[in-house]
Amino acid sequence: MKIEFLKFATVQEVYENYISKIRPINRIQTIEAIQASGYVCARDIVSPENLPGFDKSLVDGYAVRSLDTKGSSANLPALLKVVFEVRIGEIPSYRLQPGEAAWIPTGGALPFGADAVVMVEHTQAFDDLVEVMKPVAAGENVMKCDEDVKVGDVVLKGNKRIRVNDIQLIVQLGITEVDVYSRAKVAVISTGDEIIEPWMKPSLAQVRDSNTYALVLWLKDMGFDAQRVGHVKDDEEALYQVLKSCLDNYDVVVIAGGSSIGTRDHTARVIEKLGEPGIIYHGVMVQPGKPTVFALVGQKPILGLPGNPVSFFVSSRFFLLPTLRRIENEDEFMPKPCGLVRLTRNVPSVQGREHFVRVKLKFEKGDILAEPLFSETAHLSNISAADGVVRVPSQVEGIYAGQLAEFYRF
Amino acid sequence: MKIEFLKFATVQEVYENYISKIRPINRIQTIEAIQASGYVCARDIVSPENLPGFDKSLVDGYAVRSLDTKGSSANLPALLKVVFEVRIGEIPSYRLQPGEAAWIPTGGALPFGADAVVMVEHTQAFDDLVEVMKPVAAGENVMKCDEDVKVGDVVLKGNKRIRVNDIQLIVQLGITEVDVYSRAKVAVISTGDEIIEPWMKPSLAQVRDSNTYALVLWLKDMGFDAQRVGHVKDDEEALYQVLKSCLDNYDVVVIAGGSSIGTRDHTARVIEKLGEPGIIYHGVMVQPGKPTVFALVGQKPILGLPGNPVSFFVSSRFFLLPTLRRIENEDEFMPKPCGLVRLTRNVPSVQGREHFVRVKLKFEKGDILAEPLFSETAHLSNISAADGVVRVPSQVEGIYAGQLAEFYRF
Repeated sequence: MKIEFLKFATVQEVYENYISKIRPINRIQTIEAIQASGYVCARDIVSPENLPGFDKSLVDGYAVRSLDTKGSSANLPALLKVVFEVRIGEIPSYRLQPGEAAWIPTGGALPFGADAVVMVEHTQAFDDLVEVMKPVAAGENVMKCDEDVKVGDVVLKGNKRIRVNDIQLIVQLGITEVDVYSRAKVAVISTGDEIIEPWMKPSLAQVRDSNTYALVLWLKDMGFDAQRVGHVKDDEEALYQVLKSCLDNYDVVVIAGGSSIGTRDHTARVIEKLGEPGIIYHGVMVQPGKPTVFALVGQKPILGLPGNPVSFFVSSRFFLLPTLRRIENEDEFMPKPCGLVRLTRNVPSVQGREHFVRVKLKFEKGDILAEPLFSETAHLSNISAADGVVRVPSQVEGIYAGQLAEFYRF
Repeated sequence: MKIEFLKFATVQEVYENYISKIRPINRIQTIEAIQASGYVCARDIVSPENLPGFDKSLVDGYAVRSLDTKGSSANLPALLKVVFEVRIGEIPSYRLQPGEAAWIPTGGALPFGADAVVMVEHTQAFDDLVEVMKPVAAGENVMKCDEDVKVGDVVLKGNKRIRVNDIQLIVQLGITEVDVYSRAKVAVISTGDEIIEPWMKPSLAQVRDSNTYALVLWLKDMGFDAQRVGHVKDDEEALYQVLKSCLDNYDVVVIAGGSSIGTRDHTARVIEKLGEPGIIYHGVMVQPGKPTVFALVGQKPILGLPGNPVSFFVSSRFFLLPTLRRIENEDEFMPKPCGLVRLTRNVPSVQGREHFVRVKLKFEKGDILAEPLFSETAHLSNISAADGVVRVPSQVEGIYAGQLAEFYRF
């Protein structure tokens, strides 16, 4: 059996020389703002309005002319005449005169003449009078009409992925439609002679395909236009035909499986036959996830993900996802940890490759402990038991118990 | 204006005396495993099979009898006869005899007689012979047939929310259907005379409703069966009728808005009219989010969320979400931070109340810095600018720059 020893890329090389250089898709569509969650914003969104749009009381209390409260105290309160009550949603037509006050609820519009609000807790009311027991400065307890957002402010930048929070802001400003990039169309192909469908009963040595089903679920949960194209046996001509058709109809093609040398070789041959530049990297210095293949046919990325479920999982999250984010024009497409966690045990590693270790979290009075789940890479049960992974960077030989590590949630 | 000073609950009291005591819904349904993401598992799922189900090679190399490799080295290799090649997905019928080896790919089934695999890197092949340059122990580079999962293992516990990772494991085991609790039906009602629909142009002092639209989007993204029932003006009879109908048709009712004392009072009166026990807590010692109302009519929770968008946001995530997780039978329904982050500036707080501070993250060589976005609570633009919040616990007066804090992603 002849073996070709392959050259592996570093994780950094994959990000810099492969993912960063992928040409993003450029299909822009206009959609309703409340449908835009998960899409990447195609251009800067500029506010057409001020927010809140009127001078707004931040508390329940009395709108006053601040000068009238000067020097007031519990012993020597300022006595003001309550001339009306501000109704929420309405602009009072009456202009407050010196010595006058108006009841105002939280969210009410400041009447003309008033420049501050005294909190109700610092007042005492008698009939149509109110005693103010604490002075207020001009502007106190008031939100100015353009304090939150000004006309012309960029409220959402192009090339950012839109979250529900962003939608809340733009809806508030009366923006009902946004231009977004279309979602990436992702073809997922399952390969390998040993692979059978999930509802089938395996004979010995066969393996159900859970990888591509889980991958497509996960991608769809994130809004990608992902589809499981089907299963292809280890047959070069069949794989060639399926890949060719996928390249015509999708933005990204994922080939799952093929972790053994035989399958890997023939997948590589098929990719090279499809066109230039072909395979960019044959594998990457990461554990698990090493046998990930990075290819381009024309401008279209083809990723070969390892068949081992745990490697598959790590490759999907750390290589496929950034590829999809890049291709959807997101400017920050690199994986980011969701926080730091403290390791409960030493995690040894090997210098020169990144290492992702599955962990289970424990929350203890403001601290977050991460218990490493050591086991064979191939253990699928640990993917279900783990809360996520911590990263051991390639330049260290491990992380000690008690130290902090970057945590990535599953 | 008469003011009732209300008694506020601590966050702990809300979790212990309100949320923990809500009776979960008990509607169980059977669904396809690959549809189960986001549902809460209704009973323990027990594996019907071993995983991987056969003794599996973890590497590309040669299946051997480990005894035959004893004492081998690069200078004095063991010479074995290669008698066949294991095909992936097939169980070899030939039993390996002493002095024999078989080529085996990663994922291949170990032939009878063999008990270990020599990695190809430690071999040298000549015609039908192979030199083994390093001894292997019994079991080396082999995954035993029940090493990952054993028949009868609980692979997914009841009352856990099902993630895609869990689905991957159960699909791998041939489990195609699961019993889950039905998703909670959530009614979201918008209130307040000042509130108009998002597509309307506000006159001065009016405010578009972005809260309930964003809330429903967010809840639906998480798979809850949430619906915006509509907007109700500040009219007690109208609110009574809407709430009564929602209590008949939903599991949880959310009333949004009503941050001013007037609206709050009348919402409170309506809730009390609907039935016992009525309002449990009139507010909570948290900043922002204080004017959150917790009520029960019979066994049904009604939550009154503050109208101020930032308070609304914090209340949804820290009070409504745990309520929904509890009602869907999830045993771990409390909010959990997603990691620790390091503050770039001092965050002062007030002892006796929890404080959530919006932050923007910066990633720096293995560290995660959180820049607090100080501003008025009412600033909506900060919800869009922030990556999430850090928590300042009620028993401290603040957190210093450089210290770690719990981070909750938006």
